[in-house]
Amino acid sequence: MAKIGVMIDKMFEDVEYTQPVKAFQEAGHEIINLGIRKIEVNGKKGKASVQIDEKIADCDSSKFDAILIPGGCSPDNLRGEPEAVEFIQKFSETNRPIFAICHAPQLLITAQLIDGRKITGWKSIVQDIKNAGGKYQDQEVVEDGNLISSRGPSDIPAFISACLKKLDNINY
Amino acid sequence: MAKIGVMIDKMFEDVEYTQPVKAFQEAGHEIINLGIRKIEVNGKKGKASVQIDEKIADCDSSKFDAILIPGGCSPDNLRGEPEAVEFIQKFSETNRPIFAICHAPQLLITAQLIDGRKITGWKSIVQDIKNAGGKYQDQEVVEDGNLISSRGPSDIPAFISACLKKLDNINY
Repeated sequence: MAKIGVMIDKMFEDVEYTQPVKAFQEAGHEIINLGIRKIEVNGKKGKASVQIDEKIADCDSSKFDAILIPGGCSPDNLRGEPEAVEFIQKFSETNRPIFAICHAPQLLITAQLIDGRKITGWKSIVQDIKNAGGKYQDQEVVEDGNLISSRGPSDIPAFISACLKKLDNINY
Repeated sequence: MAKIGVMIDKMFEDVEYTQPVKAFQEAGHEIINLGIRKIEVNGKKGKASVQIDEKIADCDSSKFDAILIPGGCSPDNLRGEPEAVEFIQKFSETNRPIFAICHAPQLLITAQLIDGRKITGWKSIVQDIKNAGGKYQDQEVVEDGNLISSRGPSDIPAFISACLKKLDNINY
């Protein structure tokens, strides 16, 4: 089964972590929480906390089969740290799946990874996506090669379904 | 003295509201808090709360001499609401001062107001500023015509000083 790295920092959107992670684990996949420091980080709604398993700066991106990036304020925190930007750039070279929901494209924009890609995201970042060369689509889930994206919490069922299907098609 | 509208929503960066507002009031200027709803909004550090005086949707931008946009998550919340984007677009037509700190350029990006302008902002939004055509400068305060911007909390003294000087030069 897949080894999924979750890039996460404080003030993440709670359900965009808890619901996909629960679904991935129930399907037998392994979750490793990746953060700036090995601390516990809390969701912005106060409904979830996550213990960081590995520091991104010490982490080899090649060992992951897929990366999940939940939204909230977490992606904006992560993209302010060069090691997080470099990690997702390095991971993207493998062409393995990246699952991005809500504000997650912010990290991909700073990493300059969305130019020419079909992508969606939270309503507030639409102009940023377009300015970065992304082909914004107002849909519950958008798939472009290895990149699967959704707009926010109400899209989670469709997001999970698309991610699980993508994970089923990986050759481990 | 100046009538200053402060565009603000929940999870603002506390000191980026409290310190400029205190300085502006001590200099004799009037502060009117503008928000999406007439509620009380809290800072992300839990150190300040702000009662919204006027709903942006009902507000005539021409009555303000200047607009202050504190940072934190507030600008991202505001730019998800069309009335906030339209308000700052309308206000900018008057060429009156806009004071933007930290994440505030996010609202200006969605309003498509920074193309070709010298501007600074929080480290996480540098790529968004550049993609929007802004001429990003890594300085404590950047002035380009009516637009005064700073990077974050540590720049507040320089930000306040530049804003007060600009307010002194307005003909009321």
